[in-house]
Amino acid sequence: MPACRPVRGPGVKLPSSLAHERVLGARAIPPALPASNLMAQKGTLVVGQSGGPTAVINRTLVGIVESALAAEHAVDQILGLRHGVEGLLAGDFVDLRRQTPSFLPDLRETPSSVLGSCRYKLQDDDLDPALAALERVEARYFLYIGGNDSADTTHRLAAAARADGYDLRCIGVPKTVDNDLVVTDHCPGYGSAARFVAHATMEAARDTEAMRRGDPVKILEVAGRHAGWLAAAATLGRRSEEEGPHLVYLAERPVTPDEVLADVDAAFRAYGHAVVVLSENQPDPSGVVLGAADGPRYVDPFGHRYYDSPAAFLARAIVAQLGLRARFEKPGALQRMSIPYRSETDAAEAEAVGCTAVRLALDGATDLMVVLNRDSDDPYRCTPGTAPLEAIANRQRLLPDDYIDTAGRGTTEAFRRYAMPLLGAPLPRHARLLP
Amino acid sequence: MPACRPVRGPGVKLPSSLAHERVLGARAIPPALPASNLMAQKGTLVVGQSGGPTAVINRTLVGIVESALAAEHAVDQILGLRHGVEGLLAGDFVDLRRQTPSFLPDLRETPSSVLGSCRYKLQDDDLDPALAALERVEARYFLYIGGNDSADTTHRLAAAARADGYDLRCIGVPKTVDNDLVVTDHCPGYGSAARFVAHATMEAARDTEAMRRGDPVKILEVAGRHAGWLAAAATLGRRSEEEGPHLVYLAERPVTPDEVLADVDAAFRAYGHAVVVLSENQPDPSGVVLGAADGPRYVDPFGHRYYDSPAAFLARAIVAQLGLRARFEKPGALQRMSIPYRSETDAAEAEAVGCTAVRLALDGATDLMVVLNRDSDDPYRCTPGTAPLEAIANRQRLLPDDYIDTAGRGTTEAFRRYAMPLLGAPLPRHARLLP
Repeated sequence: MPACRPVRGPGVKLPSSLAHERVLGARAIPPALPASNLMAQKGTLVVGQSGGPTAVINRTLVGIVESALAAEHAVDQILGLRHGVEGLLAGDFVDLRRQTPSFLPDLRETPSSVLGSCRYKLQDDDLDPALAALERVEARYFLYIGGNDSADTTHRLAAAARADGYDLRCIGVPKTVDNDLVVTDHCPGYGSAARFVAHATMEAARDTEAMRRGDPVKILEVAGRHAGWLAAAATLGRRSEEEGPHLVYLAERPVTPDEVLADVDAAFRAYGHAVVVLSENQPDPSGVVLGAADGPRYVDPFGHRYYDSPAAFLARAIVAQLGLRARFEKPGALQRMSIPYRSETDAAEAEAVGCTAVRLALDGATDLMVVLNRDSDDPYRCTPGTAPLEAIANRQRLLPDDYIDTAGRGTTEAFRRYAMPLLGAPLPRHARLLP
Repeated sequence: MPACRPVRGPGVKLPSSLAHERVLGARAIPPALPASNLMAQKGTLVVGQSGGPTAVINRTLVGIVESALAAEHAVDQILGLRHGVEGLLAGDFVDLRRQTPSFLPDLRETPSSVLGSCRYKLQDDDLDPALAALERVEARYFLYIGGNDSADTTHRLAAAARADGYDLRCIGVPKTVDNDLVVTDHCPGYGSAARFVAHATMEAARDTEAMRRGDPVKILEVAGRHAGWLAAAATLGRRSEEEGPHLVYLAERPVTPDEVLADVDAAFRAYGHAVVVLSENQPDPSGVVLGAADGPRYVDPFGHRYYDSPAAFLARAIVAQLGLRARFEKPGALQRMSIPYRSETDAAEAEAVGCTAVRLALDGATDLMVVLNRDSDDPYRCTPGTAPLEAIANRQRLLPDDYIDTAGRGTTEAFRRYAMPLLGAPLPRHARLLP
């Protein structure tokens, strides 16, 4: 069996065996079968990457390819799908054993999805052509790295193969910066994006302090789909009440524009500047994204409708109604896949889940997703486990209430205990002048 | 005399003495006066930070404070201005000798301007109050870190002090990510911002390749005021014709929106995706910023006028006229002051110019700006020199013609030779699949 790299926080050692606890309904992984059982099952391993690329999804691919290369007794071809299941339907494969010698070492440090990604979910009509494409390459193992949409695709493929009597082992491998998968403690990709948000918010707060005379209000709009996990991470680098971020809005706590304006006004009066973080889909109490209630701001000659983003809308309202200069920033794709801000803990876990997925497939498992089970916060220890794909597909996990402060403008100590270990190395300590 | 840290590229050693060459009209620095000459001149050193904060402007402050601390024979107080000359006029000083022991070590790794910044230029009426404030704290040395506006302020203060018979040594210390100061080879701050732009563009290019099926066009809008130095840096990480950035527009080469659309269409046809970089003020041939020619897109109830940024305007035009999904990103303040993307060469040079400024002031110089003179590209070697503040104030240096390719959509090998050493460590080598 390929050895799975241990996942550890700074200074934390992991036991070499996998844990056997049940966490959040997840199952731990049984001991590996002896290699002799596997001899008859030699076949092709097919792997794809799906959804928004991250800083560490290629590390998962490295874990998969290295594990598959080490399993020569069972895997005779390793094929990557170009652009996920779109490449599967098109028969567009790439031979991952025939790359340059520097490919895997470089891939460890390469952001985004080297195979190409897609956002396509397999439809009912796609299942037969997809299975036929897999049979043509004698695929026995199908590993798909992605979020809850990808879990759905992988589950449907597993079920269709089972119904066809095709011994195809379909394993989902988790990936999403939004951290909104159920069952798993957290998702590979989140730790790096959370580190980016925490670290970049610290930097934006220093910048706003310095420029407060001219531009006293800064709004950062971060990703997170419909959950507040990423916005919540903005609180992790805050060291005192005076320093930003002063207001962190979470998708789980709808707010009205008037409430935000009152909050910003109060923060500005208290601290002379205000740093605000919110997610790209921050809703108002009616469920409409902030700024979209009044309809599109602009319709072009072709009828395309343009809305302000919540940050753009709020910046404009703050200028107009509070008379304070407000700037907004959207870190965009960089927050998903910046390598310099990456969490090394996240990178190690991303590799470990890939490695675990290969082991599960070789052991004969199918229709499962690899998850991460947390054994302990301090010292941080997480071990891979499994959950049925069906339990994860198309579901969404929101921030729990006990991670959100009573005012709904920040997070709790419980969230800090949860999230800090995922960020890897400690956040920087910025110099502060004495008062 | 305080020792100035040598400035070196990776693996490059500098001579310990300062060079005595003339480069770009800059003067080299004469040997230091013997310390005995300075005994009678003990006084307060006042330092301020001005303009947009950077990743390394605090390193310049560290260089200044450490050099001043080492010059006890001449400097008895070290006062920082809160928010630049605004703090000077308000008498708002901070004692930099009375900070926590971790202040200077932490400051080396702290982005933005720890003293607070401003964008205020001293007016004629300000000069008497400014000098009076300096006299009250017995200032003998005035060091001001900033760009060409700050050079103007420092020059006016130097001239006013001279006219008053006040022995105040005013030294400008260069800082700007826009790299648009004349005389100096480059400006501290640029190397780190250029590294950010080069590196983040590589990451955006990987992301766009991966997501080309859904979002084939990406536009990055970077800073740079009215010069193309920062946008040009986007070309530095490109390894082949196929990979982005395919189009880099420079402020020195005006383009029409129709030209951009034709370029994007051609790039998309050739490569299946297109990565475009342009500066925030990219002009059309009439000198108007792209997207502003038709007037504001929106006027709010208070009469504020809102324009699309060039990237937002182009993304909208590409969707509407080419039928291609286009996304745009603006890295915003992060490109100015991200520590994880910082150039270590830039950081070392930023510290060295601070150190040099103290030495010049102690030696009796005034009305000068520290500049960087390049002795050699390969191995990279740069040494501090000086130039009259008046030669730098309110002037702007554009990209020279021989740094811009003939099509005006990228840069030349000459630019690469100039810029690569400023980025510090080599850019990452991303894994590529064989074709």
